[in-house]
Amino acid sequence: MRRWNGWGEELTDYALHGEPLLEKWVGRGTPPRDAAFGDVIRTVPPSRLPEHPLLKREAEIRLLHARGQSFPDWVALRSGQITTFPDAVAFPESAAQVRELLQFARSVGAKVIPYGGGTSVVGHINPEASAEPVLTISMARLTRLSRFDQHSQVATFGAGATGPDVEAQLRAHGFTLGHFPQSFELSTLGGWIAARSSGQQSIYYGRVERFFAGGEVETPSGSLHLPVFPASAAGTDLREMILGSEGRLGIITEASVRVTPLPEYESFQGIFFPSFEAGMEAARSMVQGGLPISMLRLSNATETMTNLALAGRERLVGMIERLLRSFQIGPNKALMVVGYTGSKALCRTVRAEVMKTVRDCRGTDLGIGQILGSQWRKSRFRTPYLRNTLWEKGYAVDTFETALTWDKIPAYIQSVEAIIRTGLSDKGERVHVFTHLSHLYPHGASAYTTYLFRIPADPAETLLRWQHLKAAASAQIVAFGGTISHQHGVGVDHRPYLKAEKDALGLRAMTALFKSFDPDGMMNPGKLIET
Amino acid sequence: MRRWNGWGEELTDYALHGEPLLEKWVGRGTPPRDAAFGDVIRTVPPSRLPEHPLLKREAEIRLLHARGQSFPDWVALRSGQITTFPDAVAFPESAAQVRELLQFARSVGAKVIPYGGGTSVVGHINPEASAEPVLTISMARLTRLSRFDQHSQVATFGAGATGPDVEAQLRAHGFTLGHFPQSFELSTLGGWIAARSSGQQSIYYGRVERFFAGGEVETPSGSLHLPVFPASAAGTDLREMILGSEGRLGIITEASVRVTPLPEYESFQGIFFPSFEAGMEAARSMVQGGLPISMLRLSNATETMTNLALAGRERLVGMIERLLRSFQIGPNKALMVVGYTGSKALCRTVRAEVMKTVRDCRGTDLGIGQILGSQWRKSRFRTPYLRNTLWEKGYAVDTFETALTWDKIPAYIQSVEAIIRTGLSDKGERVHVFTHLSHLYPHGASAYTTYLFRIPADPAETLLRWQHLKAAASAQIVAFGGTISHQHGVGVDHRPYLKAEKDALGLRAMTALFKSFDPDGMMNPGKLIET
Repeated sequence: MRRWNGWGEELTDYALHGEPLLEKWVGRGTPPRDAAFGDVIRTVPPSRLPEHPLLKREAEIRLLHARGQSFPDWVALRSGQITTFPDAVAFPESAAQVRELLQFARSVGAKVIPYGGGTSVVGHINPEASAEPVLTISMARLTRLSRFDQHSQVATFGAGATGPDVEAQLRAHGFTLGHFPQSFELSTLGGWIAARSSGQQSIYYGRVERFFAGGEVETPSGSLHLPVFPASAAGTDLREMILGSEGRLGIITEASVRVTPLPEYESFQGIFFPSFEAGMEAARSMVQGGLPISMLRLSNATETMTNLALAGRERLVGMIERLLRSFQIGPNKALMVVGYTGSKALCRTVRAEVMKTVRDCRGTDLGIGQILGSQWRKSRFRTPYLRNTLWEKGYAVDTFETALTWDKIPAYIQSVEAIIRTGLSDKGERVHVFTHLSHLYPHGASAYTTYLFRIPADPAETLLRWQHLKAAASAQIVAFGGTISHQHGVGVDHRPYLKAEKDALGLRAMTALFKSFDPDGMMNPGKLIET
Repeated sequence: MRRWNGWGEELTDYALHGEPLLEKWVGRGTPPRDAAFGDVIRTVPPSRLPEHPLLKREAEIRLLHARGQSFPDWVALRSGQITTFPDAVAFPESAAQVRELLQFARSVGAKVIPYGGGTSVVGHINPEASAEPVLTISMARLTRLSRFDQHSQVATFGAGATGPDVEAQLRAHGFTLGHFPQSFELSTLGGWIAARSSGQQSIYYGRVERFFAGGEVETPSGSLHLPVFPASAAGTDLREMILGSEGRLGIITEASVRVTPLPEYESFQGIFFPSFEAGMEAARSMVQGGLPISMLRLSNATETMTNLALAGRERLVGMIERLLRSFQIGPNKALMVVGYTGSKALCRTVRAEVMKTVRDCRGTDLGIGQILGSQWRKSRFRTPYLRNTLWEKGYAVDTFETALTWDKIPAYIQSVEAIIRTGLSDKGERVHVFTHLSHLYPHGASAYTTYLFRIPADPAETLLRWQHLKAAASAQIVAFGGTISHQHGVGVDHRPYLKAEKDALGLRAMTALFKSFDPDGMMNPGKLIET
């Protein structure tokens, strides 16, 4: 059973370690009083949609599809103050049923929300308050590997396939998609495309832009077939109209993706640097040198310290601290994780080249790089579960992210962390904040910031505090010339900041594009762009 | 001085070798009677545009900007039957002047053609016959490196910079863009973006989609600024609206590109396989194995034979033939060229991995792989010059290309070559045809076909024969599910085939997109999409 008001499976829980440190950083948390499912379900209003064999109108199903995983979603779910629900949820089993549902929605004047894994952190799948009824179309029953050209390494899936659905079906043939966003366990192929997802090993396997090769989209104006070409110079790339469209032009029913044979070799290596700056220098040098690593992430000093403190692996951490002292690396230590994927011979050479750069920048893997790396691998999808545990202890946690060119990164991180850290000081509250570079590119990186603060008793006040911090962070992103989202998408929460990077002209072009597929504006209104 | 009716600089000429073989393949050519510049210039009609300080209305300049390098363009230029000319050509020196020119064009009801290097092979820069006057805007004076963030490795150029303009300015700083299409010497950065260009080393340096990072576009609706982000998940990627837009929505004035330090090491290696099929197996295995090579191309048996015969390097070719016999490689031999670019250590490992695959597929570099590779490097931009020489001997040559997934490639090449080879048999003419895989991807490759036939006396008949062959080739591309262009673009010549890959819905979306920037349809009408 999936948690109705938190992340992941109910049976999966991660204990919280280092609680005294949390108290030291932001004070002792008070567990909030969450609403009970049984009470919240009684707040679901009657459906405004007529009966239809493909529609589920039960309150429970509508509640379970009402919100995603954004901070406002959490406040709504935990407090039970949800206010808007889909009037029905449908679970089509074919593209033909999706077409039928779009026709039905048009005939009754309903708005349509495409629903993948419900993991959006920016409000993508939330019904707007509106006079028109809302139909949520879940892709949960379109998950199958329907075609697989192993010779060309192109696999075609139903767009509702989750990360595990995709990987299990490919692994049976010795292949992998290699797309591992943190939401991997729940998020879907169609969602990855619609929100321009990026996986942890995107250097090797590519962001969704690189592996999304073609597919089928059902739009209010008809079906769009995107054929698979290795590359093309024939005008506008229609895949790029679908990527990042956030449900505004139609529903992706099927997607063809480039896949890769399971690698001969794969490992991850943890490396410490005496400072975040030294690590950044090494990271930049590696990606700009074109080294074919498969992953690279770098935590700043606070994140490194926090992760070690909360890891709950006292013996390992003790060993690390002793080793660090002998390598003369002090409290400003920054942890990098590097991934190697491919043929053994190549990985050996790449690793040797990486270690050259590491030494030049005064880093070391302490002789336990592999242990650190496999620790990271084991916990790669754990962080969102910690959010459950923290909430129940009285701590709110959220993240924001951007991507900037290298020249802007140090000043941005310093500035945004300072602003978040003191962002609630007028309330007498401290905020614990830290950052890592999560995806690295030759010309820059994504900066991914996590922050934690105590939950006040009143949910409205919780939301206000978050809104204040979110607005402050977003203003910094815009001021420093970052994109408003490197991997979370736009949805509702980032919409006010989109004009800064698209210009009025660009927004108008996007609107015209969506309108050509959805002339009546029935698809996911209010997300990405206004109206 | 650039040739007015052929390729490249007047002083650069390549002698034709192996003429007896050409005679054997298609018969003896009869040099056509080309029109003289002095005669053709008298066919330029008076300009329909009023005077303006930024406009050049002289007949000579208008003639020199009337046609590109497509086959129909060659027939027009060589025969002197050109029929349409721009009414004026402007050479703006700033984005402000481009804006002024667009306003002027609108005020007088003129159509606008953006002009880069004039190297289009599909009719991109040709004025349509129309009641409205035509203003061609050449970017020849916007060629400067205006900003260069070496730390982030992002360089900003005027969009009129040619390949040599770009490389010379970057090399002064120790950097390279690494974009080497065959038109490199004349084509421009803006043209590469507008027509989705692909360079010979695109595996390493990327197609234009990968290195185009941002820029400035002047459109009839205003200026569009595309900021540089390493990556973004914020909705539609506006760069992808500009890429492949073929002048339909505005004029790119400035482009920021990702650049790379000059590599520590670079070499090319020639490798022979006993057959095209064996070479293809090796090529597919290399790119699917994720080997970080920088280039890979593979000629089929006829192309390998033809290139060796026409190379004019008798001693080298003699040596190759002797060595091939000793390696038991017969007349079906297929030549592959592999490029290595990067750090020495990495290139050494990659080369060793490549050679493993080569041996598995019964290939060999004959111990002279480096010599063969540097021969290829030396002549990498030569082929279009040969077109001049061949034409003057009475032989017409043209190329077409597509990209397909691996599963479709062998049957496509066999089928399209058979159709072209016998395509003029009802005229009693033979066509010499051969193909190479020019760009390789994990899921497929581009197939690039060259064909040669004798020029008849009547230019109208020359054009008819080409039209017949072009239509036959394009129909095969569509039938096999290839893209109508992997690197040449759409322009006029490929427009009828675009619907097959974009669907009516996709074409409508493209039209809506262009219209949002160019509501009156003044930009490069008739190119890419109709009207």
